Amino acid sequence: MTPLKIGIVGVGKIARDQHLPALEANPDYQLVAIASRNAALSGAANFLSLEAMLEAMPELDAVSLCAPPTVRYAQARQALAAGKHVMLEKPPGATLSEVEDLARQAQAAERTLFATWHSRHAPGVAPARDWLAGRTIRGVTIEWKEDVRVWHPGQAWIFEPGGMGVFDPGINALSIATAILPQAFHLREATLQVPQNRQAPIAAQLSFSDAAETPIRADLDFRQTGPQTWDIHVDTDAGRLTLSKGGSALYIDGEHQPTGEEQEYPALYARFAKLVAAGESDVDVAPLRHVADAFLLGRRELVEAFHDE
Amino acid sequence: MTPLKIGIVGVGKIARDQHLPALEANPDYQLVAIASRNAALSGAANFLSLEAMLEAMPELDAVSLCAPPTVRYAQARQALAAGKHVMLEKPPGATLSEVEDLARQAQAAERTLFATWHSRHAPGVAPARDWLAGRTIRGVTIEWKEDVRVWHPGQAWIFEPGGMGVFDPGINALSIATAILPQAFHLREATLQVPQNRQAPIAAQLSFSDAAETPIRADLDFRQTGPQTWDIHVDTDAGRLTLSKGGSALYIDGEHQPTGEEQEYPALYARFAKLVAAGESDVDVAPLRHVADAFLLGRRELVEAFHDE
Repeated sequence: MTPLKIGIVGVGKIARDQHLPALEANPDYQLVAIASRNAALSGAANFLSLEAMLEAMPELDAVSLCAPPTVRYAQARQALAAGKHVMLEKPPGATLSEVEDLARQAQAAERTLFATWHSRHAPGVAPARDWLAGRTIRGVTIEWKEDVRVWHPGQAWIFEPGGMGVFDPGINALSIATAILPQAFHLREATLQVPQNRQAPIAAQLSFSDAAETPIRADLDFRQTGPQTWDIHVDTDAGRLTLSKGGSALYIDGEHQPTGEEQEYPALYARFAKLVAAGESDVDVAPLRHVADAFLLGRRELVEAFHDE
Repeated sequence: MTPLKIGIVGVGKIARDQHLPALEANPDYQLVAIASRNAALSGAANFLSLEAMLEAMPELDAVSLCAPPTVRYAQARQALAAGKHVMLEKPPGATLSEVEDLARQAQAAERTLFATWHSRHAPGVAPARDWLAGRTIRGVTIEWKEDVRVWHPGQAWIFEPGGMGVFDPGINALSIATAILPQAFHLREATLQVPQNRQAPIAAQLSFSDAAETPIRADLDFRQTGPQTWDIHVDTDAGRLTLSKGGSALYIDGEHQPTGEEQEYPALYARFAKLVAAGESDVDVAPLRHVADAFLLGRRELVEAFHDE
């Protein structure tokens, strides 16, 4: 097919590390433009805003939005209104309502909207989902523990309203759990630890359940020094499945299973091209909905102030 | 048609004040059973639990769930699995995810699920929606201010996690706003005042917007003594519409408009019977989604402790 002419909006770390290399390696795309207030990129037209990009380049087919979620709705609405297909970094918005609204706008405009969850394309996830299909699930334990000072140095916004705190990485775990477990689940109880000088939680313990009352627990913590943990354990009638390292390693009863290579962003762009070709959208808000549910239903405990130095 | 044999689960104040009279007055229903741990009702079979009711009365067609939202999912799942149609008091659940799950279960079971929002049936709401259709909306102001000591005496649960605090009445305003405004809207910013000895907010200021960037503001307050306010003002190119007294009185540019009588619960049961006859469900989570968004995105301020005496 003719390559999709695509523009990237918001050229920060995630765009440089992931989006640009994935696009360069994929012949279905031609990266023709970027919009960024700070960054420049040779080999593409450079704009200061999405608005300027849309105005100057009517031939654009699609845009990929990598700016923070607080500006995502306005950008996506503008791009859809201009007739572009839109791919959204995670999380797809600052609120659930705006994402639902965008999905309706994409449908009305007959354009593709793709709300991505990159962790769902970690190499262990598809094999884990296939192995779990049809098994009886007895319990699930999610441990997502990392050192915020190492992974988010100086990112004060993460503890601001809308920054989601420990749910910024935790939503990746929820995006995997909602992809591999055969049944929908919902929150029963949660406790959120919020530093007394911040707005968003630094840790959270979540207790979910499903229609079969399967216990599903998640332990999220931003205060983990030493070894870092991004694990999901699923106990079944056929043994224990473990997805480790954020979904990149798979074990059954402790035995390492072969998986493909790490290809998260290449897989996202491959899927976006397929959705565009098929005239479809993919907007699954389930991970963000679980986070909103945790803020709605969770009990808050004030804990020690957090200072990022 | 043959009357629907219906059972009520959770016979507290709202069931006695609203559900029982509405059912008695409607020939489409035969109230055959109640389930309650405390209450008794003559003229119907009395059970201590929904489980006992379902077991003893296979002829039941439908149940209406009036117990608190924290137990709603388990009861609705059980009733749907037993092949009953289900009507839910507001809010339809303690989380968004559980309501989405119930909607899927109802579809799979080919049974009606009706998530009710009683305020949408206040007499001014339908005329307001009709009058606003096609007008240009310039701004919306919601003022929902009541004295929690008067309306919720001794209801400590309302300030507990999941109790939603001032959003317990505020969700009624949001259920009306989502029904009368022609465009979807979403939260941009919010501040929640939380008493330092409680979990849920006692007041909130919300700033919403829509695709046309219309300013939509809501001011919710549980600390209102003196006159109580449940008003929605909509400024348009054709003047100002005001829905007052929780949707029961309608004004255009200050002039009182004729509306029908207060019929909220009779209208809910009339609609439920229609949905059952048509084999359809009605599960609109938009009001609860706005509340979850407010908890997700809102800035919290600790305020004076609240003591209920």
